[in-house]
Amino acid sequence: MVASPGAMKPNFSLRLRVFNLNCWDIPYLSKHRADRIKRLGDFLNMESFDLALLEEVWSEQDFQGLRQKLAVPYPAAHYFRSGIIGSGLCVFSKHPIQEISQHVYTLNGYPYMIHHSDWFCGKAVGLLVLHLSGLVLNVYVTHLHAEYSRQKDVYLTHRVAQAWELAQFIHHTSKKADVVLLCGDLNMHPKDLGCRLLKEYTGLLDAYLKAQDFQGPEDGYTMVKQNCYVRQQDLSPFPFGIRIDYVLYKAVPGLYISCKTLKTTTGHHPHHGTPLSDHEALMATLCVRHGPPQQSPSPPHGPVEKSLLTRVLREARMELGLGIARARWWTTFAGYATGLGLLALVLLCVLAVGEGPSEVAMLLWSPSVGLALGAGAVFLFHMHETKGLCSIQAELQHALEKAKETQDLGPEPQLAPLPGQQEGDRDEEQ
Amino acid sequence: MVASPGAMKPNFSLRLRVFNLNCWDIPYLSKHRADRIKRLGDFLNMESFDLALLEEVWSEQDFQGLRQKLAVPYPAAHYFRSGIIGSGLCVFSKHPIQEISQHVYTLNGYPYMIHHSDWFCGKAVGLLVLHLSGLVLNVYVTHLHAEYSRQKDVYLTHRVAQAWELAQFIHHTSKKADVVLLCGDLNMHPKDLGCRLLKEYTGLLDAYLKAQDFQGPEDGYTMVKQNCYVRQQDLSPFPFGIRIDYVLYKAVPGLYISCKTLKTTTGHHPHHGTPLSDHEALMATLCVRHGPPQQSPSPPHGPVEKSLLTRVLREARMELGLGIARARWWTTFAGYATGLGLLALVLLCVLAVGEGPSEVAMLLWSPSVGLALGAGAVFLFHMHETKGLCSIQAELQHALEKAKETQDLGPEPQLAPLPGQQEGDRDEEQ
Repeated sequence: MVASPGAMKPNFSLRLRVFNLNCWDIPYLSKHRADRIKRLGDFLNMESFDLALLEEVWSEQDFQGLRQKLAVPYPAAHYFRSGIIGSGLCVFSKHPIQEISQHVYTLNGYPYMIHHSDWFCGKAVGLLVLHLSGLVLNVYVTHLHAEYSRQKDVYLTHRVAQAWELAQFIHHTSKKADVVLLCGDLNMHPKDLGCRLLKEYTGLLDAYLKAQDFQGPEDGYTMVKQNCYVRQQDLSPFPFGIRIDYVLYKAVPGLYISCKTLKTTTGHHPHHGTPLSDHEALMATLCVRHGPPQQSPSPPHGPVEKSLLTRVLREARMELGLGIARARWWTTFAGYATGLGLLALVLLCVLAVGEGPSEVAMLLWSPSVGLALGAGAVFLFHMHETKGLCSIQAELQHALEKAKETQDLGPEPQLAPLPGQQEGDRDEEQ
Repeated sequence: MVASPGAMKPNFSLRLRVFNLNCWDIPYLSKHRADRIKRLGDFLNMESFDLALLEEVWSEQDFQGLRQKLAVPYPAAHYFRSGIIGSGLCVFSKHPIQEISQHVYTLNGYPYMIHHSDWFCGKAVGLLVLHLSGLVLNVYVTHLHAEYSRQKDVYLTHRVAQAWELAQFIHHTSKKADVVLLCGDLNMHPKDLGCRLLKEYTGLLDAYLKAQDFQGPEDGYTMVKQNCYVRQQDLSPFPFGIRIDYVLYKAVPGLYISCKTLKTTTGHHPHHGTPLSDHEALMATLCVRHGPPQQSPSPPHGPVEKSLLTRVLREARMELGLGIARARWWTTFAGYATGLGLLALVLLCVLAVGEGPSEVAMLLWSPSVGLALGAGAVFLFHMHETKGLCSIQAELQHALEKAKETQDLGPEPQLAPLPGQQEGDRDEEQ
């Protein structure tokens, strides 16, 4: 524990080595699970990062095994429980964890899409507060809803809603943090709406774009065709790979973060030739030190950035609007179906009481009960979805009005803390 | 908008008039709803508070009506949407709202307790950030799960879990706030576990206990027998009334809040003789000004307060432990029932294929499907409940360890910001 957070000595620099991996640790379904988790443990033991942030550790037993194995290099650990299956998120830290919290996303797919199962997981964002060398570090780990089809992505609105909730959670909980770090599988490409919304609203910087030294697959891909666990048809629109796992960071003005190195595995385990997961691991070395408050030619939240923010907020609001219309359509449809089911039940009761054909009535009883209950459940679910989407749309609308106000009035220090100036930028997005 | 939050002039004082009411605005169920909402609007229009925080406004139409009516004295307003029915929370503000967010509680009763309906509401805490006279104000409004029976309170664990999530949400989102204000219907008596947990963890002070001038029912009751809408049998263990609605506040060190007056209605409308709701309204006048950092004889988070915190954290952890045991029992029970339902379905299929009595099979088909599906849903719900309770228990455990550490090491400024020193304390709790 530190006596005075934020009081890092003037010439001191803090070096942070961070590991992130979506572990593809699904009991009964993932290939070579036990072996991969064992090798992951060996690797983390050997490398001794400051922080190892993992996603898709769906087996709490595997987490407990890793916790035991990693107790010496990573004395602090936490498993984020949520939903029915769990969030799959966990963290191992070399440094004591001061505070823990989590936020479970309001919307996360549909319960009747059982084959996709995201709804059952309770996707969330986990927060750890660390005190390191006089600095307060807020570390976030998350995993958003999967994208099963890029051409017909029925979960797009939910993912954008999750990206907004993530941005809001980070914004509201990191106001006193000196350094903010977000790692995880966002299931979004760098230029996707949700990804831009997150970055523009929070001011978080992308380690891949800022790294002075990047080693890894072309364009920083974190799912690559070379990985034997990746189904090639999943990558068909992007034959070489996709970048959906991220290390993002920012610091308060007066502090300066640089990403010295970012290494991404290339579809093979760094030492054994077989991959640790179907995703690639990200290993970033960040350096935090004092820096002059204004060095870069244009301020990070100048007029250009503000207009980007209003644009992305407008886009997100529109996407939410489409989602609300769809959710309302389903609510109405399920409402009518429930009514139909109930009507059928009433008719069958009348038939049973009267002298109607009892066998037919008995045969139709189950489907009618099923229709009334099933459609009733769908109705309630889409009522909930509509409320959730309307809530997020109202927040977006409010943020948009405030962003426009500050755009008209000049700099606003509250909306998104200014990140420190960066060096070694790779400006091009993939 | 203010140029520099936290920069209130040295001799300036900020006066805040706050109104809070659980409106009992339930479409089709609440008595004299339209008339009460009309009179509430008239009253708010006449009194022109800085903030009016309302709970149980379950009709969004009523909110929109009030918004229109109150547009002049309260130009800013927000309705917090969540769950299936809604959170029932809304706010009207004389001052611009800078930021809006909300957190929906993970656990909120049981879907099969339809007659209690809390589960369908999506109980939540709403957050507004205001900038007033150079200060950042975080205003929270909430409504926790109702208590239907004090003798056999099956929702106690969920309410304690909600109190913890509320405390965590306030703690993590108010780190840069100069003033924190929480209003709402906590559905907890002042000495109840959840209420103590909330106050000890956040350092929030109770306006009723601190008010220099209190006008209202004995012991600050907010549900009283004189109110014609209160069912007398609900108050049977407490014949004179209960105090479950609160105005709580705190400020950062260096600022000083005093509650000049607290008025509570007494079961009658202030001007017309009939009450506005089954709950009483709270009207507080708070005064924020600069104050010396240490005036009171004992520091507000000295060893005594820290030991109170560890004690209440321990109590809450124990309550969560009991809740987890119950949730696991129900999960197991529902798991067996689901298995039984599935087994019955298999047997009926065998009977139907073979030459068994087809009429009996058809008669048993519906109950078997019902058992399998119903028990399956209960199984999934209690799996979710167990995960949620385990997550909160782990956070409590971590907070307890940290509280113990700081207790051993001396003052820790991070856990709960020190409230300003207060005057006019009424020390006795009811």
